[in-house]
Amino acid sequence: MRFSFPLMALGLEVAMIVLFGLFAEYETSWYDYQPNTTQITESERFFQLYPLFQDVHVMIFVGFGFLMTFLKKYGFSGVGINLFVAALGLQWGIIMQGILHSHGEKIQIGIKNIINADFSTATVLISFGAVLGKTSPIQMLIMTILEIAAFAGNEYLVGEIFQATDIGASMTIHAFGAYFGLAVAGILYRSGLRKGHRNEESTYNSDLFAMIGTIFLWIFWPSFNSAIAEPGEEQNRAIVNTYFSLAACVLTAFAFSSLVTHGGKLNMVHIQNATLAGGVAVGTCADMDISPYMAMIIGSIAGVVSVLGYKFLTPCFAAKLRIHDTCGVHNLHGLPGVIGGLASIVAIVMGKSKKSTTAIQAAALGSSVGTAIVGGILTGPSRERI
Amino acid sequence: MRFSFPLMALGLEVAMIVLFGLFAEYETSWYDYQPNTTQITESERFFQLYPLFQDVHVMIFVGFGFLMTFLKKYGFSGVGINLFVAALGLQWGIIMQGILHSHGEKIQIGIKNIINADFSTATVLISFGAVLGKTSPIQMLIMTILEIAAFAGNEYLVGEIFQATDIGASMTIHAFGAYFGLAVAGILYRSGLRKGHRNEESTYNSDLFAMIGTIFLWIFWPSFNSAIAEPGEEQNRAIVNTYFSLAACVLTAFAFSSLVTHGGKLNMVHIQNATLAGGVAVGTCADMDISPYMAMIIGSIAGVVSVLGYKFLTPCFAAKLRIHDTCGVHNLHGLPGVIGGLASIVAIVMGKSKKSTTAIQAAALGSSVGTAIVGGILTGPSRERI
Amino acid sequence: MRFSFPLMALGLEVAMIVLFGLFAEYETSWYDYQPNTTQITESERFFQLYPLFQDVHVMIFVGFGFLMTFLKKYGFSGVGINLFVAALGLQWGIIMQGILHSHGEKIQIGIKNIINADFSTATVLISFGAVLGKTSPIQMLIMTILEIAAFAGNEYLVGEIFQATDIGASMTIHAFGAYFGLAVAGILYRSGLRKGHRNEESTYNSDLFAMIGTIFLWIFWPSFNSAIAEPGEEQNRAIVNTYFSLAACVLTAFAFSSLVTHGGKLNMVHIQNATLAGGVAVGTCADMDISPYMAMIIGSIAGVVSVLGYKFLTPCFAAKLRIHDTCGVHNLHGLPGVIGGLASIVAIVMGKSKKSTTAIQAAALGSSVGTAIVGGILTGPSRERI
Repeated sequence: MRFSFPLMALGLEVAMIVLFGLFAEYETSWYDYQPNTTQITESERFFQLYPLFQDVHVMIFVGFGFLMTFLKKYGFSGVGINLFVAALGLQWGIIMQGILHSHGEKIQIGIKNIINADFSTATVLISFGAVLGKTSPIQMLIMTILEIAAFAGNEYLVGEIFQATDIGASMTIHAFGAYFGLAVAGILYRSGLRKGHRNEESTYNSDLFAMIGTIFLWIFWPSFNSAIAEPGEEQNRAIVNTYFSLAACVLTAFAFSSLVTHGGKLNMVHIQNATLAGGVAVGTCADMDISPYMAMIIGSIAGVVSVLGYKFLTPCFAAKLRIHDTCGVHNLHGLPGVIGGLASIVAIVMGKSKKSTTAIQAAALGSSVGTAIVGGILTGPSRERI
Repeated sequence: MRFSFPLMALGLEVAMIVLFGLFAEYETSWYDYQPNTTQITESERFFQLYPLFQDVHVMIFVGFGFLMTFLKKYGFSGVGINLFVAALGLQWGIIMQGILHSHGEKIQIGIKNIINADFSTATVLISFGAVLGKTSPIQMLIMTILEIAAFAGNEYLVGEIFQATDIGASMTIHAFGAYFGLAVAGILYRSGLRKGHRNEESTYNSDLFAMIGTIFLWIFWPSFNSAIAEPGEEQNRAIVNTYFSLAACVLTAFAFSSLVTHGGKLNMVHIQNATLAGGVAVGTCADMDISPYMAMIIGSIAGVVSVLGYKFLTPCFAAKLRIHDTCGVHNLHGLPGVIGGLASIVAIVMGKSKKSTTAIQAAALGSSVGTAIVGGILTGPSRERI
Repeated sequence: MRFSFPLMALGLEVAMIVLFGLFAEYETSWYDYQPNTTQITESERFFQLYPLFQDVHVMIFVGFGFLMTFLKKYGFSGVGINLFVAALGLQWGIIMQGILHSHGEKIQIGIKNIINADFSTATVLISFGAVLGKTSPIQMLIMTILEIAAFAGNEYLVGEIFQATDIGASMTIHAFGAYFGLAVAGILYRSGLRKGHRNEESTYNSDLFAMIGTIFLWIFWPSFNSAIAEPGEEQNRAIVNTYFSLAACVLTAFAFSSLVTHGGKLNMVHIQNATLAGGVAVGTCADMDISPYMAMIIGSIAGVVSVLGYKFLTPCFAAKLRIHDTCGVHNLHGLPGVIGGLASIVAIVMGKSKKSTTAIQAAALGSSVGTAIVGGILTGPSRERI
């Protein structure tokens, strides 16, 4: 029994090394560099994107990691398991996405892959938020493998088959990760795992540690939403829109937190989480020509919905649906992710983007939520067998 | 009463959305991109500046936020209200600066505006340090609106009318923010608000949280001082000068902290704050051809003055002038900001810059300090009415 | 007595200012900019490297600083003295490296120097980890001056005379810093300094603070290993290899931590430190054409060796060799640094690089470890005289 986790971790690392040995090589397109051309070379592009990659990297490891330190008893587990899951997930994400996108050739590893690999891990880390305190490392390990496979499949379907647009991944990462995690949490709840409730308390210090996560996520979200956008106009727009959506979201989240909290005080859980909903919700539209004020409207709505979700939906989910969502990922990633998908439909109706149609975007949203729920339900019981 | 804060916050966000809808649009100058030119395009410039922007962003939200966690009872307020104030301030800053600089045309939102928007918020966050523990969120909200309007006015006067040089904003942000905050703190003191003293204690953990703020501010200060400098020589110089000024400042701050502290020990407040004075003081001269050793002299002086300020001036201000400066912003931003202005006068006398004259720089310093004090005095009482 | 530290610090800062006044000037090569050429100008290169510099800067001040907060009584000392040592060390590093490399001309200060200056300080900060809790600020000050001189000498020997390759400085920084620190710790131990053991405990919060250091080091290590690599292919490879080596290392470190810990639990010390060994070990080979899977093998081995070192070697060193290694730098920097040197020999044998020969690499490794041990032994007693 006590050797299961180390042996599985070692076995998976050996498997990753074999897979990389067989299927991966360095990206070589910068060999084509023409000295007399004014085009940006691949190597220059590497340097344009590298800072954005590092911002995303900080979000994954510091942002998600410390956001989960708010529980006094699970702080170290939160940030530690977060590191483990992400380190495994990024290797596996490269392989899964690479196989789907490389059409039988070797996977060319450059800056784009490692950004996408970080993205892959985000789905599992979001789901982790729903099951924090209810799972063992070995269960997380299995969930990482299964969820990233499901994510890569859905992302290929949405992006390549449907040709939907989802630059900041509101649907394919945030909604997907949240509903996957909720489905798993629902399964775990039924299995009688009602532990963790007694330890579900925060302290003053654990809340401050969590704010490290919140603030770094908030700061670097423009990089998350723009990292894989088209260079130029679209990428710059993705940065600007996300910046303003997040700022607007903070104001409405603070306002509604005060409105729904006893005595008009601010609720720390809202501040830690709902202030980020604007980044999620603007994701799908981030590179569209929606104007900054539209981004601010999207962010404002997300802040309101997220606070109301924490206040009313989360207790209801636990009591009625028997889904216990430890970090409230439904309010931070689930609902705002759905808002993101719906916002893209509105934007297309308003003529702000010709990249996709309303039907395609609706299909993408449905596919992301549906695949996540089915995937989560199928993953849940498999974790009991260990 | 309890609905004042949420309603004001929501009302302001609606106002911002309307203002952005009327007056703001994406920057479009990169449409002019000529494929056969070797000039750096706007989009490339966006990518050169984006990492500097993100460094400044970290300073505003992590740096200022966590620097204010040193009080055991106000840690969460510090970092939370900091986020709220900055999120409001950056939207308002875009509008105020945009209206003054865009000469009746629409505000073109690109990387430069969002850097400047972050800068606008810095003034309020500095002032917040002087009144931490003495104000409610609603008071901070009013101060944000009034102070940023005053800041934008003074910055336009100093930069556009006087044509003074202040690349790192020692005068227009640091001295301005500090003296504005001190004036407000003076007004609040007179009103009989003597609360907060009992809670004015730090713990071992709260001091460590504050060091997160200190270190991130210290690290990214070269980006703060160089972000809006002329590309090339001047921008690179701003980075190098700030780097060395800060390094020198650490040595003198540690030395004087040990000199003036009982038993030769180090005082945590000095380490948290005075080590940063070098970044403030070198600001105005940062892009001038002053040589690294001059930057180190400026930093060394700032470190000494800042520690002496904490030791002797702050208690004196509280006792004699009835100004209670919670975080000691006078020592970290006020005095070093004035040093920055004076250093630029010396540098011009020594022939290190031809961008400005000694009279213009003196006028800029006087205007910044004067506007701040008058603005702070006028803002102070208005906050009592709520 | 109580004036020794402040006077020495002030005296050193004055000396630095004089040395910079005599020997340093801004880099001026960007004056040569040709408007009609497609070559990357120095100023553009500055901007390509500046984000990497800032990543390294975060590692030095946040990473190393907070990694040393794990002891409940030395948290503030750890991060505070780290700041002081690094601020002194970077000034001194510029001078020492500049004198050796500038061949009698003035030291041209640009982005490369300040990256290298940060690197210089890393050696002392690594050594600091071995003696944390056993030294006074004044002893650290002396060690900084002596160790950086020894480091610059060895680095010149290895890089310029031997022409060895060590892009991520596994040998010249990590192994050097670790063995220097161990030698000093050994000397201090013999002198009867057995204090610090009672306070050698961590708390839940201090362990979380240390994780801030761990995670930021982990995230930005690709920048550390690539910052001074050749632009293009080699630099990109250094990033990719380090990314995968670190990911693999996390899996084996977690696995072996669970294997060697009572009850299959995870040991916090292992998670905080051994997860980083992959970044150290891949350093020397980082820019070579070794393929990602080889980087993962190197990282996997480093994670295993590092955990085993913490479990078995550190107690043995304390008991048998009377070397008390507070942070276990031998396991995080010493052994993985040696692995890095050995890996480069294997890579050259396998034909992955023609930049160096096996004999040269072996000489570089021997020189780094040897110089460090001799330097540390000579430095140790000098610190007793104060």
